[in-house]
Amino acid sequence: MEISKTPKPPYYAVIFTSKLNSNSEGYEKVSGRMVELVQQQSGFLGFESARETVGITVSYWKDEASILKWSSNFEHQEAQRLGREKFYNSYSIRICKVERAYSSMSV
Amino acid sequence: MEISKTPKPPYYAVIFTSKLNSNSEGYEKVSGRMVELVQQQSGFLGFESARETVGITVSYWKDEASILKWSSNFEHQEAQRLGREKFYNSYSIRICKVERAYSSMSV
Repeated sequence: MEISKTPKPPYYAVIFTSKLNSNSEGYEKVSGRMVELVQQQSGFLGFESARETVGITVSYWKDEASILKWSSNFEHQEAQRLGREKFYNSYSIRICKVERAYSSMSV
Repeated sequence: MEISKTPKPPYYAVIFTSKLNSNSEGYEKVSGRMVELVQQQSGFLGFESARETVGITVSYWKDEASILKWSSNFEHQEAQRLGREKFYNSYSIRICKVERAYSSMSV
């Protein structure tokens, strides 16, 4: 996992934070498939992810239309249903416009 | 660490992603102090943090002015300098306007 190389702002970010249930059997498989699938979506710019007590996944997008299209993807909707009903104890989704960005990448 | 309970959008988010150097001695102490200090800042709404290969810290703010004030806090500036010069192999800071949010919190 690397820090995403994103274009100059403005672009969009989806901040997804979650806490898993103690029994989240099947989560890794569904999660891995979503990582695979999201990278094929038009307008997808990159993502970063880490989990300790809470899991944080930030995905970056060209525009809001791309986010809407991904949220209504059939296979993704099934994964969202499993997330709500089985995997997540709690979660939060925040749709954001990235207005400014700074980075320092070593070579 | 809980998922932050934030007000209705719009508000702001700072997405800070980083990779630590192999020698990042002193990082935990500085990082812990910043967690303490940030919570005392006016306009601060909450934060979420997790680190695996990359570290992701998202802090939430009332407005841009609060973010600017925190970024110029004297003790925080010294921590930023240590981060750049010693702790971080690479990092990225993204300033975002949260436009929409959904959450499901179990009780």
